[in-house]
Amino acid sequence: MVDLGTKGPMALNALTASKAAEKLASGEITSEALVRDCLARIEAREDVVNAWAFLDPDLALEQARARDAEPRRGPLHGVPIGVKDIFDTADMPTAHGFPPYEGKSWGVDSACVAAFRKAGMVILGKTVTTEFACPQPLRTTNPHDPTRTPGVSSSGSAAAVADFMTPLANGTQTGGSVIGPSANCGVYGYKASLDGLDRGGFRHCKKSIDTLGLMGRCMDDLLLARAASVGGEAVRPSSGAPRIALLRTPWWDQAEPCMQKAVEDSAAMLRDAGATVTEIDLPALFVEIEDHFAVVNGWEGCQMLADEIRQYPDSFNAHNSERIGYVDGLTEADYFESGRVLDGARAKMDALFDGFDLFLTPSLTGEAPVGLTEVRSAVFARLWTQMYTPSVNLPLFEGPNGLPVCVQLVGKRDTDDAMLANAAWADAGLRSALGTVPKKI
Amino acid sequence: MVDLGTKGPMALNALTASKAAEKLASGEITSEALVRDCLARIEAREDVVNAWAFLDPDLALEQARARDAEPRRGPLHGVPIGVKDIFDTADMPTAHGFPPYEGKSWGVDSACVAAFRKAGMVILGKTVTTEFACPQPLRTTNPHDPTRTPGVSSSGSAAAVADFMTPLANGTQTGGSVIGPSANCGVYGYKASLDGLDRGGFRHCKKSIDTLGLMGRCMDDLLLARAASVGGEAVRPSSGAPRIALLRTPWWDQAEPCMQKAVEDSAAMLRDAGATVTEIDLPALFVEIEDHFAVVNGWEGCQMLADEIRQYPDSFNAHNSERIGYVDGLTEADYFESGRVLDGARAKMDALFDGFDLFLTPSLTGEAPVGLTEVRSAVFARLWTQMYTPSVNLPLFEGPNGLPVCVQLVGKRDTDDAMLANAAWADAGLRSALGTVPKKI
Repeated sequence: MVDLGTKGPMALNALTASKAAEKLASGEITSEALVRDCLARIEAREDVVNAWAFLDPDLALEQARARDAEPRRGPLHGVPIGVKDIFDTADMPTAHGFPPYEGKSWGVDSACVAAFRKAGMVILGKTVTTEFACPQPLRTTNPHDPTRTPGVSSSGSAAAVADFMTPLANGTQTGGSVIGPSANCGVYGYKASLDGLDRGGFRHCKKSIDTLGLMGRCMDDLLLARAASVGGEAVRPSSGAPRIALLRTPWWDQAEPCMQKAVEDSAAMLRDAGATVTEIDLPALFVEIEDHFAVVNGWEGCQMLADEIRQYPDSFNAHNSERIGYVDGLTEADYFESGRVLDGARAKMDALFDGFDLFLTPSLTGEAPVGLTEVRSAVFARLWTQMYTPSVNLPLFEGPNGLPVCVQLVGKRDTDDAMLANAAWADAGLRSALGTVPKKI
Repeated sequence: MVDLGTKGPMALNALTASKAAEKLASGEITSEALVRDCLARIEAREDVVNAWAFLDPDLALEQARARDAEPRRGPLHGVPIGVKDIFDTADMPTAHGFPPYEGKSWGVDSACVAAFRKAGMVILGKTVTTEFACPQPLRTTNPHDPTRTPGVSSSGSAAAVADFMTPLANGTQTGGSVIGPSANCGVYGYKASLDGLDRGGFRHCKKSIDTLGLMGRCMDDLLLARAASVGGEAVRPSSGAPRIALLRTPWWDQAEPCMQKAVEDSAAMLRDAGATVTEIDLPALFVEIEDHFAVVNGWEGCQMLADEIRQYPDSFNAHNSERIGYVDGLTEADYFESGRVLDGARAKMDALFDGFDLFLTPSLTGEAPVGLTEVRSAVFARLWTQMYTPSVNLPLFEGPNGLPVCVQLVGKRDTDDAMLANAAWADAGLRSALGTVPKKI
C-alpha cells in the first residue's frame, strides 16, 4: 500500500475531499494550505509515479488564494482536482497525450472543467492520459508498486488520487478507462451514463461511446464531485436496501481467485446487510456484440482524429496507427449497422435491470500486473461502456501481492443519481462488515 | 432576384457544385479558375452582402492549386465550400461571432471540415454566424434585397450561396438556423438528423439540439455534399413516388398567403406527379412542448458557454445575456424533465410517420421581411430541430415582393439518406410541373 511519507497522515493531502471540504467550510484550513500539501506530495513522489502531464504550482496556489479570498460557491469550494489531459483548460496546455500537441494551449475550458471552476474548485493540474485516451500505456506507474501498471487510459488521475497527490481527479472511459485505473490503483471511481456527466468541449470525443468519470478516496467524494459537475445537490445514500444481482458474466474464468472471492464475499456481506442478492446470467447476446463495439470504436476513432490524421499522419502511437488502418476496411453502412445492433442490446440491458437496482460484478480480472507497457483487456468494464450504464469501483480488498482488488456495481443507464445512492448504501454495508479496509483476501 | 453582374452566367461561380464537379472531373476547368471566379464575385459584392467572417484569397487559391496538382479524391474534388464560422478550421481563425474570439485561431479542424478536406474540397473561407449561433442578427444582408434579412444564424452561408459567391456552404440549426436562412435567401438547404452529420469538434455544441446542415443551389449538390461529409456514395433520387403528408400545422395562420399557396400548390403538383398526398393534423402535444424546448435550449446554452461566461461575462450580445439570466431560475431536474418530455414526443413523432415518407410543410412564415435587426420566429422549423427529423428547403417560388418563398420536406429521424432520396424525387417532380423556377406565386 502507498506510504504517506515522513509528513504522514497529518498532511492535508491525506484528507478525502469531503473531510477537506468540512475543514474549509469551518475555516479550520485554507485552500492554499491544502494545495501546498498536495504540491509537496507531488514534489516528493512524481519522479516515481509520473502522474502529471502539466503542473504549475504557482498557478494552482494562485487559484487557491483567490478561492480563499472570496465567498464559498459550494461544498467543494477550495478543493483541488486533477483534470485528465484530454480536457481543455483555459489557463493550462492540453496535449491529449499526443506529441504534436505537447505544450499547446487551447484557451478554453471543457464543460466539465468550467463546472469545477463554477463550484469553486481548484484545477490543480493536468493528469497523464494515454494518446487520445487509447489503451496504449504511457509513463505513469502504480503508486502501490512502481513495477506495475496503473491501468489505462485515465492513468495519471487514478495514480494521483491513490498516491494522495490530489483528493479528486476526473477521467474518461471508452473501454475501461475509468473503472480500470481506479481498480488497479485502488480508488473509488464513478463512470457516468453516456451523458450523465457533460461532454461539452471534449474535443476528441467519440460521440456514441466516450463517457466521463470521477475518482476519489471515498464514496462521499464521488457524490460531492458529481454534484459539483452537474450543478445540483449531492445525493444521499439510499435509506432502503437495494435489490442486487450477482453477475459473474461469461468472462468469470478470466478473473483471478482473489477477484472471484472478492465478488462472492461481497455478495454474501451485502445479503447479510439486508440487500436481496440474486444470481443472474448474462445473456449470450452481450458477448456477441463485441465485434460491433470494435466497428463503432474504430469508425468514430478515425472520425474524431480526422484532422490529426491529415496534419500529423506519422505522429500516432502503434495502437492508434493500427486503428486508423483497421477502418479502411469499413463502410459507413457497417458503422450504422453496428450502432443499430448496440442500440438493440441497450434496450435488452434495460430489461435485464427489471427488478434490480444494481449488478455486482468484477472491476478487473485481478490485481494490477507487473509491467508498464502491457495493454490489458478491459473485459469486465467494456460492456458497461457500450451499454451506457453508470458504474462505480469499490476499492475494499487487497490481493495476495498487496495490490488492490476491487468490485464493481452497475446501475441502469441514465439513473446515475439512483445508482450512486444505492452504491453508497452498499459501500457503507461492506465497510461495516469488513471492519478494516482494504481487507486482505 | 440576384443579379450576376457584368461577367454574367459565363463566370464559373455561377455553376452549381455538381456542374462544376463534372467540369473538374473532365479537366474542362481547374479548381483554381473556379475559386478565382468565386473570389471575384465576393470582391464585387461583399460590401453589400457581408457574408464572410474570414476570407484569405491566397489561402483559398493555394488549396485550389494543391487540389489541381493531385489525384482526385472524390466527386467534389476541387469544389469550394464556405464554412460557418462556428466550426474550427486548422488554418483559419474562428470567431464564433463572439468579439473576444475575433481573429483567434484554434489550430484544428472540426470533424465536418476535416471531412470536406478529405473529400478534396477547398475551404473557401468562413461565413458569418451570429454570436454562438444565437438568433440575434449580425451584419449580413439578403442578396436579393439588402434591406431585408438573410435569416439567422447561418446567415453568411445562405447569403454566400444565394449570391453565387460559393456553390456550397454549411451551417448549424438549433431553432431554424439552416432552413430559415436557406428559405430567406432561396437556396437548397438540408438540415440533418441530430447525428446525421458528424458534430465532432463543434466546440459550442448544445448536445441534445444542435444539428449540422448543408446548403447549395440544387438538390444534387446537397446529395453530393452529404456524401462528402459522411464519406460514402451520394444517394440517388427515389425511383418510386413517396407517400407524402400535407402538414399545415397549428401555426398555419401565421403563414402569409404566398406561403400557404406555395405549400398547397406543391401538394397538388406532387399528387399530379404520382405521389400520394394525405392531409394530416399535428397533434396538440407538439405545440405544448415548446416550453420544454426553451428549458433545454437555455440550460445547454449556459453549459456550452460556461467557460465564456466565466472569462468574458460582459461580452455577450443582448440575446445571449438574457438567456444566461433566464437559466438562473432553472434546476438540473427541470432540464432532465424537459428532456424526458421531448424524448417522449420524439417517439410519438416517429409514429406520426407511419405510412409516410415525407411531410410537406412551410419553411418560413413567408418572404424575408425588411430589416436586418429583427429576430424572427422560426416557428415552422424549430419543431423539426427538436424532433431530430431531417428536412430540406426547396426554393421553388417567388413571392409578391420578389423574394424567395420556399416549402419544406421533412423525413423521419435518422433516415437522412431516404429523406434526401425522396426529396430529390419531389424536387424533380415539382420543377417539371413548374417549368420555370422560381415560379411567381
